[in-house]
This record gives sequence, structure tokens and C-alpha cells, in this order.
Amino acid sequence: MGDSMLGAMAVLMKNFDKYAGKDAEKGSMSKAELSEMLHQEIPGMIGDKKQLDAFFSGLDEDKDGTVSFNEYIVLVGSLMMMLKEMFDQ
Amino acid sequence: MGDSMLGAMAVLMKNFDKYAGKDAEKGSMSKAELSEMLHQEIPGMIGDKKQLDAFFSGLDEDKDGTVSFNEYIVLVGSLMMMLKEMFDQ
Repeated sequence: MGDSMLGAMAVLMKNFDKYAGKDAEKGSMSKAELSEMLHQEIPGMIGDKKQLDAFFSGLDEDKDGTVSFNEYIVLVGSLMMMLKEMFDQ
Repeated sequence: MGDSMLGAMAVLMKNFDKYAGKDAEKGSMSKAELSEMLHQEIPGMIGDKKQLDAFFSGLDEDKDGTVSFNEYIVLVGSLMMMLKEMFDQ
């Protein structure tokens, strides 16, 4: 389903629900859920707990201790800009 | 390829290149390229030229007359937030 623009957006939206839905608070990602997502979806990106803490803190813009859907979208956008820069070099 | 998180991001990155690459300026989207992308990928979103002009002007944050990759990423993020709100209602 993901090969059209809308399909790829749907995959990314479902991906949030998949990991955010693992604990009782289904509308946002805890640090544990973010960690699981990154380890499953982008292996090698996060090394140790210190890196995870710094990364989570950077994403959690409103400092409520969770990553909201909008904060996740900012993550996805940043990752695409980072990948684009890597590929363009 | 698009059903994983990374795969979906790759589809969205390729989608930019597909439409931005239609004229000589391959690193950015002209208004004509944006129009073609929206008509092909999100049929019904843009009705007439006036809507397209307003939409293009909103996206072109640095007012250089083209939509850069980063401006496209802002568009993709905004669309996902809009769709999420629609689905959550």
C-alpha cells in the first residue's frame, strides 16, 4: 500500500499508532515505546540509554514526558531531511 | 517497499524527486510541478488556479518561487496532521 504518496503517509501514520498503542496511553509514545520503535524500524540509530534520553528530550518539545503525534511528525521530517543530505553527498 | 517506516520515508523522498525532476531545475518544485503532483497524488485537493496560487505561496516559505525539499517535507507533515485530525473525529 505504501508506494503512492498517500499510501506512504498512511504507513507513517499507522506506524505511530502501532508503537504508541502498546501501553494504556494510546495517543502518545512513552520513552519505552519510542525506544522500541527506533530499535525495530531504524536499527543502529540509537546506541545506549544516554543517546535515547537526549533524543527523547529533543523530541518532547512541550516537555510532557511523551512524544505526541505532532512531535512524531517532526521526527519523521527531520529523519527525511537527514537522509536526503546523506544521499546528496 | 513502502510498508516499513524507512520504506515509507523513501517513497516520500522519491516522490519529491519524481515531480521536482520534470523540468531543468531538478532540486526544487515549480508551481507547475507542485500542481501536477497534487492532481496526481491527491486528486480533488486543489480545485482552481486561485487555490493553487494560495497553496503554493503558503508553502514557498523563503519566497524564491519554488518549493524546496524542506518545504515539501513541511507540506507532507501538515497533510499527515490534517488527515490524522480527520480520522480522529
